[in-house]
Amino acid sequence: MKITVDGLEDLTRGAAFLGTGGGGDPYIGGLIARHAIEKHGPPEVIDVMDVPDDAWLYIIAGMGAPTVMIEKGLSVEAASLAVEKLESHIGHKAHAILPVEMGGLNSLVPVALAAMRGLPVVDADGMGRAFPEIHMVTYHVYGVSTTPMVIANEHHDFCLIEAANGKRAEEMGRALAIQMGLNVMLSAYPMTGAQAKQTAIRGTLSLACHIGRAIAEGRRTGEPTEALLAYLRTTPYYNHCAVMFEGKIIDLQRETTRGFSIGRCTLAALNGSSSRMEFTFQNENLLARVDGKIKAIVPDLICVVDQDTAEPITTEALRYGQRVKVIGTSVAPSMRTPEALEVFGPKGFGIDEPFRPIEELF
Amino acid sequence: MKITVDGLEDLTRGAAFLGTGGGGDPYIGGLIARHAIEKHGPPEVIDVMDVPDDAWLYIIAGMGAPTVMIEKGLSVEAASLAVEKLESHIGHKAHAILPVEMGGLNSLVPVALAAMRGLPVVDADGMGRAFPEIHMVTYHVYGVSTTPMVIANEHHDFCLIEAANGKRAEEMGRALAIQMGLNVMLSAYPMTGAQAKQTAIRGTLSLACHIGRAIAEGRRTGEPTEALLAYLRTTPYYNHCAVMFEGKIIDLQRETTRGFSIGRCTLAALNGSSSRMEFTFQNENLLARVDGKIKAIVPDLICVVDQDTAEPITTEALRYGQRVKVIGTSVAPSMRTPEALEVFGPKGFGIDEPFRPIEELF
Repeated sequence: MKITVDGLEDLTRGAAFLGTGGGGDPYIGGLIARHAIEKHGPPEVIDVMDVPDDAWLYIIAGMGAPTVMIEKGLSVEAASLAVEKLESHIGHKAHAILPVEMGGLNSLVPVALAAMRGLPVVDADGMGRAFPEIHMVTYHVYGVSTTPMVIANEHHDFCLIEAANGKRAEEMGRALAIQMGLNVMLSAYPMTGAQAKQTAIRGTLSLACHIGRAIAEGRRTGEPTEALLAYLRTTPYYNHCAVMFEGKIIDLQRETTRGFSIGRCTLAALNGSSSRMEFTFQNENLLARVDGKIKAIVPDLICVVDQDTAEPITTEALRYGQRVKVIGTSVAPSMRTPEALEVFGPKGFGIDEPFRPIEELF
Repeated sequence: MKITVDGLEDLTRGAAFLGTGGGGDPYIGGLIARHAIEKHGPPEVIDVMDVPDDAWLYIIAGMGAPTVMIEKGLSVEAASLAVEKLESHIGHKAHAILPVEMGGLNSLVPVALAAMRGLPVVDADGMGRAFPEIHMVTYHVYGVSTTPMVIANEHHDFCLIEAANGKRAEEMGRALAIQMGLNVMLSAYPMTGAQAKQTAIRGTLSLACHIGRAIAEGRRTGEPTEALLAYLRTTPYYNHCAVMFEGKIIDLQRETTRGFSIGRCTLAALNGSSSRMEFTFQNENLLARVDGKIKAIVPDLICVVDQDTAEPITTEALRYGQRVKVIGTSVAPSMRTPEALEVFGPKGFGIDEPFRPIEELF
């Protein structure tokens, strides 16, 4: 399979859905990938199980605050610089580019860089969703070192970091990203094919494509949300899913602080009842309550989509008065193990609630 | 000449004088150097003009807030790690260690590392005083690239930075230093012997030793300040010098902010007059006024010493009620050129006054 310009819309929309509010802006992601594919041709998508054990894979992602990225745009040259510097430090060229997360931007940046470099992109990532911090990824949970890690920007400033652990790498990387304008490219977790097979969430890039296509096809029959849910139920990871709430945004607090977009959003029901949903976010949506009762909690997915079109809405695009549906879905089993929850369960975000799977909370 | 344990006290005291309030804590500097020399033997001091043109020199300095460094101490292992990583990035081993500034800590860290590595230390630096920011150095003014630059801490976290210019390197380095605990070792400005000959201030390490010795010898005759001034008048750079004020500290504002120790200090005259001196600092003393009239301004030196012993007092060691003398001295001519003043003249510190040489202000 190749990712062509024609397939970009589905991929971008599906990845934005999996981004659960974060993962970067789909408009920018789509533009970057389109430009790279038009110029360099469509990149091949390969199964992680087909990567030779001793081949080297490099991840690439945009890092910063979506607010800033929307204003300033992003450069695939900075992405290329980041991976080149890491390759030369490691001493092995990339066999392929490996996504780190799914999101409107961060599923597309690897595609753009793969196109530019004439390399394949791996059909996998490190979460099957998006997360705000560098160490919140299965690669880290299951033993790949976060560093060496390179951060680069469009001015060709770059920084190679080696840190004692993933959390330190996140802290150092975040401080730099803030200083470098909250608009940088990051390559970390350099790993072999053998390591990727053990740690990655397999098939998520093509799942994102199919999710986007399901929404598009559903629009033709006038029932995009139903089509989306029907498709999700056939997937290996997102099969527990439901519309948790349908409402209008009546309150929205959002600020760019500590290098993140942090806030909370309140919805009033559209069915005439006095019911309210409130959800919180740190780039990504973290915890959704209806009338005080928890309906979904990180790392399960809390996805906000347009009421009529099922278009995914990032936290940056939330607006007062918007009419939306909030969909909850399960994540891959390797995202719910005790060691995974230790890193990106509720505790990882300072939320004083235990994780409970969405299928129990419904 | 070798720097022996017996010579450390003079060097530390003289360097602290040249540090003009900054350059790190002399107590910590002295401890680190003593420990390294006792363990590894005294390092040779070499003239910068004797370094082969194609040999590589590496600088090393502690970076952070003196307040934090005093509390946490510093590690010569972190210094060694920083230089090693830079050597391996450049692909050339160090011929010698080159000081970047004079100061109670930052003249001694190069000595300690030179001892540990069995290398010589170069009798020169990049200012003949101390400055708070990475790009404020003759190496930068006269064309040596600030980066690649490595920052390392005692946890073995390290970061290699390449920035578009010296100011960006400072901003990125500062953000990292804050994140890494304001207690890090920095190696930057990797350069050849040819570059050092063109850009360094020659002889400053031995000048620091002689300054310290002059104070010590002056104490025996009961006139340390006079002995210090008499020696300074024989030097090539510090020959314009005078006691600008003798007073008691009656007001002191000092905070650790943006990664610096920033503040102002007011002295009341001890001669019975109503005269006041006020001086400001950003790690180092920047601008001294007596009754509103400028007496000395950066990059000339403003050095606070104990009234009786002429012991140099860093900005961190200033205390309410202290009785001190404030000495002004000239700097090396290459520190006063238009291109040098552009970087570390008053403008570089946001001071809206022109530079005027101390010999004109007396």
